[in-house]
Amino acid sequence: MRVLGVDPGLGRTGVAVVEGAPGALRLVHAARIDTVPQTSEPARLANLYDLVADVLESYTPDVAAVEQLFFSTNRRTAMRVGEARGVILCAIGRAGVHVAEYTPTQVKEAVCGYGAAHKKQVMRMTSRLLALDSDADDVADACAVAVCHHHRARLSALTGTRRRQAGSSPLERAVARARARFEAARR
Amino acid sequence: MRVLGVDPGLGRTGVAVVEGAPGALRLVHAARIDTVPQTSEPARLANLYDLVADVLESYTPDVAAVEQLFFSTNRRTAMRVGEARGVILCAIGRAGVHVAEYTPTQVKEAVCGYGAAHKKQVMRMTSRLLALDSDADDVADACAVAVCHHHRARLSALTGTRRRQAGSSPLERAVARARARFEAARR
Repeated sequence: MRVLGVDPGLGRTGVAVVEGAPGALRLVHAARIDTVPQTSEPARLANLYDLVADVLESYTPDVAAVEQLFFSTNRRTAMRVGEARGVILCAIGRAGVHVAEYTPTQVKEAVCGYGAAHKKQVMRMTSRLLALDSDADDVADACAVAVCHHHRARLSALTGTRRRQAGSSPLERAVARARARFEAARR
Repeated sequence: MRVLGVDPGLGRTGVAVVEGAPGALRLVHAARIDTVPQTSEPARLANLYDLVADVLESYTPDVAAVEQLFFSTNRRTAMRVGEARGVILCAIGRAGVHVAEYTPTQVKEAVCGYGAAHKKQVMRMTSRLLALDSDADDVADACAVAVCHHHRARLSALTGTRRRQAGSSPLERAVARARARFEAARR
């Protein structure tokens, strides 16, 4: 599975393409998308759209993982990040790629083992897991959310398999037992 | 001048195309763009993008006027409106159309004569000014922000003209007087 992780922002957006499975993850692409502060906001958003669409076209991910946003104390910054995030989700939606969203706590839990991990710890873990050679925290965050999706997908695949091995729900098992008794009585 | 007014939202976006000049404004197009609540957010944002791009292509406005956003008490709603607004600005930016932004107070002042006007008054004024036949407040707000841009553009054209008629800045006038004295002395 190939996952595109995105850490959204108007000025700086981190993107990372991570493929493989937990334990054998491989970093295919990692970059920071910058928009020019001197240009107008619509021009920056249009530019951001084109750059994200380029990544989607070049790396054809199976799914995109995007961090959920929480409002910071600075409302102006939060607004701009929200607008950038909308553009990124739109580009992914138009490419027909499914989006999974994760809270910062879920991402930290998946990468560091606990949800209150610091930025530095997330960076250290992503560079260890993926041999990431970048000191940009936007890129590390994009890697982290991609890794988070890989872990979550593995987890739900495992629980799905276990349920399938167990065969059925209590109701289905009761029906199977009744049918077996019926078949035994007929013979 | 043809102005596209937009009142952004994820579920409902009002759009209005208004052309002419203050005193002789004409409503070319007014509509509410709805996205399907049952679909995913990226799909809704992609849909919103396509519908706004359609309006831009069909009506080729000279400029777009978009209301500035302020955070409501509901952070979740504010976030979604911010994301929708980003997508709309992106679509306008990609169409190469200039965006003018106005605060709700500026819009109300331009349409009703004072910045604290109520929603009902804005609706009454836009339907009077543009013979708008719609009871959707998103559409009325889109009309209002387009009318606001027409008024503001007229105002700055008038003050620009007046300045050009007055000829120059105090420095330029001083230079012109000095040159005239120099020319007079030479003769």
